[in-house]
Amino acid sequence: MNEGQKTLKDVVGIGNAMVDILAPADEAFLAEHGLPKGAMTLVEAAQAAKIYEAMVSGVEMSGGSVGNTMAGLASLGGTGSYIGKVHNDQLGGIFHHDMESMGITFGTAPALDSSPTARCLVIVTPDGQRSMATYLGACVELGPEDIDADTIQSHKVTYLEGYLWDAPMAKEAMIKAAELAHDAGRQVALTLSDPFCVDRYRDSFRDLILNHIDILFANEQEIISLYQAEDVYAALELGRGDCNLVAITRSADGSLIATGDMVHQISAVPVERVVDTTGAGDLYAAGFLFGITHGYGVAASGRIGAIAAGEIISHVGARSEADLQELVLRTL
Amino acid sequence: MNEGQKTLKDVVGIGNAMVDILAPADEAFLAEHGLPKGAMTLVEAAQAAKIYEAMVSGVEMSGGSVGNTMAGLASLGGTGSYIGKVHNDQLGGIFHHDMESMGITFGTAPALDSSPTARCLVIVTPDGQRSMATYLGACVELGPEDIDADTIQSHKVTYLEGYLWDAPMAKEAMIKAAELAHDAGRQVALTLSDPFCVDRYRDSFRDLILNHIDILFANEQEIISLYQAEDVYAALELGRGDCNLVAITRSADGSLIATGDMVHQISAVPVERVVDTTGAGDLYAAGFLFGITHGYGVAASGRIGAIAAGEIISHVGARSEADLQELVLRTL
Repeated sequence: MNEGQKTLKDVVGIGNAMVDILAPADEAFLAEHGLPKGAMTLVEAAQAAKIYEAMVSGVEMSGGSVGNTMAGLASLGGTGSYIGKVHNDQLGGIFHHDMESMGITFGTAPALDSSPTARCLVIVTPDGQRSMATYLGACVELGPEDIDADTIQSHKVTYLEGYLWDAPMAKEAMIKAAELAHDAGRQVALTLSDPFCVDRYRDSFRDLILNHIDILFANEQEIISLYQAEDVYAALELGRGDCNLVAITRSADGSLIATGDMVHQISAVPVERVVDTTGAGDLYAAGFLFGITHGYGVAASGRIGAIAAGEIISHVGARSEADLQELVLRTL
Repeated sequence: MNEGQKTLKDVVGIGNAMVDILAPADEAFLAEHGLPKGAMTLVEAAQAAKIYEAMVSGVEMSGGSVGNTMAGLASLGGTGSYIGKVHNDQLGGIFHHDMESMGITFGTAPALDSSPTARCLVIVTPDGQRSMATYLGACVELGPEDIDADTIQSHKVTYLEGYLWDAPMAKEAMIKAAELAHDAGRQVALTLSDPFCVDRYRDSFRDLILNHIDILFANEQEIISLYQAEDVYAALELGRGDCNLVAITRSADGSLIATGDMVHQISAVPVERVVDTTGAGDLYAAGFLFGITHGYGVAASGRIGAIAAGEIISHVGARSEADLQELVLRTL
């Protein structure tokens, strides 16, 4: 470790900055509004308004996949920054506040005109699954001009959200960030975000991973879909050929982590009652990234991911209610 | 009951329309920002921004004392309308959505310029108490022009919030509503809202109650402060001289309800763990008003209030998570 490395922060996350609106509803609600269960569906402003109108009274909290991960990282005692685009409006102000209040630097300039801050309508069905309708709003304004070398190169890991691939300028931003990170010898991680996202961009995702990604996060369906593989093990073999480390989350079956020469099998942390699975993957990534940026081995990092994911699914919402640092110290 | 009465809705509530931002903090936080514990402090925009900046990541949900009561009434199966002033902004849209989504008609025209929708910064200390800093924003724009005879007279009870007394035009609106209600033979209820509010307006509150109020809701400190009485029983005697019915909430000691000739003592509903007392008084009022507008006697109405209050203090936030109608049917 040289002098410069000593002052590096842990993770800079780049994602779609949005506020979640969570409300309970039944399966029929999903069918009526054409929302595939357990997945994220992109909707236009008019459709978002229609779905929101049909939803019962909700609770709002900052969200976004990488946003949730950064919040988890901060709760674990990690350090970092966030890059994402909000509008200069009330929800944007709330998102900005929540990020900074956790000690995560959020310096991206807000959009001043165009669309409002993104919102994600999160429908929580009685089985604890969440189905999401996302209106991207200001997120589509994120572009390469929002990525600066200083920010990227002052963090050990740059963490990217697959969902960003839906916005053309954000794709450029992701590539730029990955190149800047690698220029300085930093690592780049990606989460595939969701199976529908993988379906939309299979080939370009595979190019991205092969050329720019060191650490890949995915769940079973996502990695199987990405490689059009027979099963998760076949997909894992293909994934480890493309990047240094592949971490696959498998709900109650825990996770698999493949490095060049080993596959680690990590158990899930038992949870008394699964209340809401929102953010399980995001918090797994938070725990894993915290681990590897703090000198833990791959298996221990996976275990920290499992602890963080276990906490998040035991209550409503994708931001942790417990002090994760304390929880990990007690549980690991 | 005449033909007209058959079609009356239960309650029209008039209150400060605001969105709560809830976050945990310790006692030192309250001291540092000069917030008296357990009470509501009015703050200007700049002070609200300063407190918010110091708060940790929060959860947003629609609030307001009478807003919470109307939500509780709807959850109990009651019908009603809400009158209050939001701005034409995102938080205003959320407040409007949440009210209408529960079946409560909210037809007040939003403010188009001037201040944003009110927000209440709710600091939840580890003992479950909440201390609030309220920025009134658009609420101060509520005036007599927002009160129409049709709305007031089509509800059995008009329910007013003491907090409204902080905004001069809203005072006029309250008096106008009370007079319209009485012109049509309807009842008018008031909640004193909080002891500091009573301190600010003791004399004019006593005039208001004597001349316009049939049903008065207060907690112990509020009613003692209002009448500068020795104790709650002395205050109750004075209160029953001023209006037909006085309901006093006493936390774990339940409530006292005085009519012209009787005092009913109602037990609190035991709660496993008090998580957050936000909204206990609001939900007591919801239960009580539901009871008396649905033919229950005074004591049974108080019991419904106690059940609703017990539910709300067992979780974070002042909007009920349970189906109160079902809870009352099971518990009463």
